[in-house]
Amino acid sequence: MNTLGPLNEDNVLERFYAVIPAGGAGSRLWPLSRAAAPKFLHDLTGSGSTLIRATWARLEPLCDGRTMVVTGRAHRRAVCGQLPELREADLVLGPEPKDSAAAVGLAAAVLYHRDPGIIMGSFAADQVIHPVEAFQAAVREAVHTAAQGYIVTIGITPTHPSAGFGYIRAAGALQVPGAPSACAVAQFVEKPDEETAAGYLAEGGYHWNAGMFVAPVQLLLKHLEAPEPALHAGLMEIGAAWGTPARRSVLRRVWPGLPRTAIDYAVAEPAAAAGDVAMIPGNFGWDDVGDFAAIGRLHSAAEAGNLTVLGEGARVYSDNASGIVVSDTKRVIALIGIDDVVVVDTPDALLVTTKAHAQRVKSAVEHLKASGDTDVL
Amino acid sequence: MNTLGPLNEDNVLERFYAVIPAGGAGSRLWPLSRAAAPKFLHDLTGSGSTLIRATWARLEPLCDGRTMVVTGRAHRRAVCGQLPELREADLVLGPEPKDSAAAVGLAAAVLYHRDPGIIMGSFAADQVIHPVEAFQAAVREAVHTAAQGYIVTIGITPTHPSAGFGYIRAAGALQVPGAPSACAVAQFVEKPDEETAAGYLAEGGYHWNAGMFVAPVQLLLKHLEAPEPALHAGLMEIGAAWGTPARRSVLRRVWPGLPRTAIDYAVAEPAAAAGDVAMIPGNFGWDDVGDFAAIGRLHSAAEAGNLTVLGEGARVYSDNASGIVVSDTKRVIALIGIDDVVVVDTPDALLVTTKAHAQRVKSAVEHLKASGDTDVL
Repeated sequence: MNTLGPLNEDNVLERFYAVIPAGGAGSRLWPLSRAAAPKFLHDLTGSGSTLIRATWARLEPLCDGRTMVVTGRAHRRAVCGQLPELREADLVLGPEPKDSAAAVGLAAAVLYHRDPGIIMGSFAADQVIHPVEAFQAAVREAVHTAAQGYIVTIGITPTHPSAGFGYIRAAGALQVPGAPSACAVAQFVEKPDEETAAGYLAEGGYHWNAGMFVAPVQLLLKHLEAPEPALHAGLMEIGAAWGTPARRSVLRRVWPGLPRTAIDYAVAEPAAAAGDVAMIPGNFGWDDVGDFAAIGRLHSAAEAGNLTVLGEGARVYSDNASGIVVSDTKRVIALIGIDDVVVVDTPDALLVTTKAHAQRVKSAVEHLKASGDTDVL
Repeated sequence: MNTLGPLNEDNVLERFYAVIPAGGAGSRLWPLSRAAAPKFLHDLTGSGSTLIRATWARLEPLCDGRTMVVTGRAHRRAVCGQLPELREADLVLGPEPKDSAAAVGLAAAVLYHRDPGIIMGSFAADQVIHPVEAFQAAVREAVHTAAQGYIVTIGITPTHPSAGFGYIRAAGALQVPGAPSACAVAQFVEKPDEETAAGYLAEGGYHWNAGMFVAPVQLLLKHLEAPEPALHAGLMEIGAAWGTPARRSVLRRVWPGLPRTAIDYAVAEPAAAAGDVAMIPGNFGWDDVGDFAAIGRLHSAAEAGNLTVLGEGARVYSDNASGIVVSDTKRVIALIGIDDVVVVDTPDALLVTTKAHAQRVKSAVEHLKASGDTDVL
């Protein structure tokens, strides 16, 4: 194994490899998002692209096809349909769902065995970002900073005091060639209450933790090994077998026993405490499309009126109605005298709620699961 | 032809014949009520019976099968399915929709040619009445009063100052054997505004015009002949042919040219002015199920909670929701944090509104008609 040192500034971007974890049922977007067709497989903004396709396209200019996707076996066909350019060797299929440390760590281990000098960046498949140029500039700075031996998070400049995200408290500027906005990270902060969040905004220096990070695979694995030695060992065993005929059998044998944990807890926070984490401020619009209210904000059709309608060939009649309609059928939908409503119409399930209650969709899904209505989940 | 005189009090009820006009698209109940399956073919109260079946059952003890149904040709099969006891001779099918004067007048003409001594009572197929015993007592009084040479309306004792109904102003009591509550009618009043309606309630003596009336067919036809001679002549021609092989051809030839008018305008108001109209106060619960808000009031399931659910095998998940759900599919319906909502879910159309806006459903239907979405009407 090589020890990763500072790379030549000219070719550092060529060592960059994008990793797209595509998981999560997106149950706050039920019944549009399902176990069989999760959030990342939908076009939730009316852009004409699914979220995973848009994520790929956003990264493409940075990595020229060096993109790996980590997803569940159930989504193989759908993901390949969305990303025909994706190479077989770059499609990592978990035989069963695990938490993010296993998914991202496996990508790191596979890439490490390909080339220990790789700098990987992890970007969830179901986020909405614009303009892409500002995102790409931030990632370039992050790659340059990672090349200096950092795990680099891209912290989103907050637009409002959200209680729905974790925060990153920035410290002093770092002197990194090619990354003028790089700074040290003082602390990762758990999701605050709204008052605390408002204080963060007033104080300044706090950014949303969007779960985006860029790191040398070697450094990432080192920080995973200390708190999660069993996970690290398992991932390295799978990574070593990846380019060999044993790939499948090793994956099947090792994966089910891997511990479940989130990458943030396992790696990011201890690494920050050790001074190994840097941040690039992301000055771009970012949304994790956490619920149907987000769709109302993001969808391009929203500007047309008070009612946002998603769905090809939707047949919606509206009389003094506002809110969001997602039509996944050809049925006529009539809305009369109802404000901020959320209607999601699919062939086997219908949701009617309000924007204000959009977050509670998740508990409806949990209830349906508990009551055995799994045919519509 | 015989001249109708006072009948023997003992057999007067045997001259009674019930007529059930079954028409109207019920567009305020779209998309449950359709042109092909109007209001009267639905069980809107959770009683287990369709409205037309309940109407038949309510009249059965009074007329022992002497019941005629006037409906559109399109509903023949559905009506016969609901009323297997209905005789072919008592099923009057309009080749195309006409207004109420033609429908009710045709029944009168057919019955007149059967027996000029018949007393008919007309009761719409889509009203909800309870208790039926109070209704039946009122009809019996109405038949006795009609036998004295009156057109007798049953006026509903108002429970609130509704602006949605016409009113009947009662005058002095009549001395009719077998009808202790019979009174004269001073005036029919058009639908008032709410303030005027409140005044009627405070003043007393006003009743809702529910469109129910009982009259000797001969007297009814006499009062139709004066204002509508062409309609009268046409109906009498069809009535004369009814029991003959020419029934069908005469109906087809004459019906399309008949004038369209409402029985209230054509007959009831002029007859009242002539002193020929009496009223029996109807002291029973009555509802014309005018919109989905009415279903919420009437449905037996409404007592179970804040959410009324109609539909066999409905799969409804509710979290802090109130209102009405009509499920005409097997889809899962999730309602979250929404009050007084009306959701009507059918295979090809979905309505989402509120109880307060239930009356505006009609204009949605008109809009869909105008925009060519007739497949769902």
